[in-house]
Amino acid sequence: MLVIDGNSRSNGNTQTLLHILLDNIPHEYISLRDKVVHPIIDARHTDEGFQPIKDDYQSIIKNVLENDMIILSTPIYWYGMSGLMKNFIDRWSQSMRDPSLNFKQGMYKKKMYVVTVGGDEPKTKGLPLIMQFQYIFDFVGASFEGYILGKGNKPGDILQDKKAINIAKFYNQAFLQTLC
Amino acid sequence: MLVIDGNSRSNGNTQTLLHILLDNIPHEYISLRDKVVHPIIDARHTDEGFQPIKDDYQSIIKNVLENDMIILSTPIYWYGMSGLMKNFIDRWSQSMRDPSLNFKQGMYKKKMYVVTVGGDEPKTKGLPLIMQFQYIFDFVGASFEGYILGKGNKPGDILQDKKAINIAKFYNQAFLQTLC
Amino acid sequence: MLVIDGNSRSNGNTQTLLHILLDNIPHEYISLRDKVVHPIIDARHTDEGFQPIKDDYQSIIKNVLENDMIILSTPIYWYGMSGLMKNFIDRWSQSMRDPSLNFKQGMYKKKMYVVTVGGDEPKTKGLPLIMQFQYIFDFVGASFEGYILGKGNKPGDILQDKKAINIAKFYNQAFLQTLC
Amino acid sequence: MLVIDGNSRSNGNTQTLLHILLDNIPHEYISLRDKVVHPIIDARHTDEGFQPIKDDYQSIIKNVLENDMIILSTPIYWYGMSGLMKNFIDRWSQSMRDPSLNFKQGMYKKKMYVVTVGGDEPKTKGLPLIMQFQYIFDFVGASFEGYILGKGNKPGDILQDKKAINIAKFYNQAFLQTLC
Repeated sequence: MLVIDGNSRSNGNTQTLLHILLDNIPHEYISLRDKVVHPIIDARHTDEGFQPIKDDYQSIIKNVLENDMIILSTPIYWYGMSGLMKNFIDRWSQSMRDPSLNFKQGMYKKKMYVVTVGGDEPKTKGLPLIMQFQYIFDFVGASFEGYILGKGNKPGDILQDKKAINIAKFYNQAFLQTLC
Repeated sequence: MLVIDGNSRSNGNTQTLLHILLDNIPHEYISLRDKVVHPIIDARHTDEGFQPIKDDYQSIIKNVLENDMIILSTPIYWYGMSGLMKNFIDRWSQSMRDPSLNFKQGMYKKKMYVVTVGGDEPKTKGLPLIMQFQYIFDFVGASFEGYILGKGNKPGDILQDKKAINIAKFYNQAFLQTLC
Repeated sequence: MLVIDGNSRSNGNTQTLLHILLDNIPHEYISLRDKVVHPIIDARHTDEGFQPIKDDYQSIIKNVLENDMIILSTPIYWYGMSGLMKNFIDRWSQSMRDPSLNFKQGMYKKKMYVVTVGGDEPKTKGLPLIMQFQYIFDFVGASFEGYILGKGNKPGDILQDKKAINIAKFYNQAFLQTLC
Repeated sequence: MLVIDGNSRSNGNTQTLLHILLDNIPHEYISLRDKVVHPIIDARHTDEGFQPIKDDYQSIIKNVLENDMIILSTPIYWYGMSGLMKNFIDRWSQSMRDPSLNFKQGMYKKKMYVVTVGGDEPKTKGLPLIMQFQYIFDFVGASFEGYILGKGNKPGDILQDKKAINIAKFYNQAFLQTLC
């Protein structure tokens, strides 16, 4: 299990959800705010094609491909994923054309989870974001196994969202059973 | 009229739509790929608050505030706006807390347009993105005046999307009448 | 608590969820398939206005207005609520103009829940339906307190959707605590 | 070309759009408010299966199957299609299991259009409805060729929605060219 965290601060509400979700679950954790991932330069239709970019993207995506279960964790910023996460996802277009990766085959049937927390009516205004993740995972043939939409603004708020906490515990139990 | 362009390549399909839309319309144009706009560091709940960041964001947002009509132009990347555009929008959270800007008052009733082109069924799979823009504009009290969802992948494709071209021409006429 | 059930068969999956959700909770239950609710005849802009219609709608809506918590239960048919439920909701337009009801004031801050089960990827393809309910409740000033999106096709399928069952149990506990 | 009209009043705004859209285009027209189409009784999982229902549905659906291009026209009521239209669509579940119809094969690659008008921010709050139509058409393998989302409440309002009028004219031209 690998967590890709698109939060731009530590100890946020998404983090709290992740702790509950991953209690006793062995996992790797990558925080995008500690990495450099440049916005994509769209070279799909240039003669040269994509050029190697010197940042941390390639090592992160290799890590993704080596794991069967991926949790994408992002705050809801302006009703979408964070720019940190979006830059990361946008670069998948580059990986799609990278013969060294076999990206689409590698993503096929991978189990994807999304954990996201927002302040403004996330349980409905966060739904376009969930739809986007569904389209994203469909495009690469991955399986969207589940999501947690939590409500919170100030650090700690999420603890008041008992439904989100409950779902995190539920998935935690499901993960534990998978491990046995 | 000010165009904020979140494309990561020049001469793309969105560009073609913009040319039709803006034919004979005086406007300013900012390409985010020629600017540096860092991802937000969320400091809303820290003691220090947001710190000034040395990049081009502040001058761009001042330009936005000085214009009555804003066109946000972005390719549909992975069913959302480009990371370049998302980084720009995410920074609005910083502007919301910047007493020198009067951001929310400045955005109130501003006329917003979105021009976006995607390759995979944009007229329906692009709808979550349109919803997000609606939520974004609602949040700051701006008015979502219209959008063009075009279909295209390779440069030039958009010319086959006669409906999108038609809508671009329609708005162009409407803009021209506003100017008279 | 009042349940309005838009299912067209008994013992379906939505019913199973409702049983878990309402265990030990006193409630009234109205099945729309046992009632007659005609499609609306839109008379908002006629000289005569809406005319009284001889069916069960008026008594049902009065019952709604007398309860603080309303559960709308519908299968997901063709990615939307059932026609039975839609006919019922459409008639709210008539109630909006019925001076004997004070409809909008009566709906204000009412607590609304939605329980819905579908067969084809309900957790994402059911999201447009959830958005519609949000818009509906917003329009009348009611509060969308929560929803359960379950997966099931054949009767009994829902028992395999452990997450939906879990959320139903969670709300059941929350309801029980409200009663104490 | 066949129009299925789910409006519950005549001379509404959707009607006005249809007149522009179909100017000089030979077509058949069925108004659901002049027909009887009962809500579905879900018998997918009963021993007996679906029983024949005495209403106008079967003749309408046969007409649909005989046409290559179908326009579904509905007001936006409460952010969804009208109950009249929903009852009609729900019955497709019955047709799916009707061996006399070959329904899914008959719907395959059929060209579908949606014309819909609403009063409350239809260009964004009508988008969940458009998504539902996309899912519906995808399910039966039909092709969602285009849609018009118009704004209007009182009869005649739609004439103020110059963009919708423009799109209707655009499709009209496209239809005329198809006929030549």
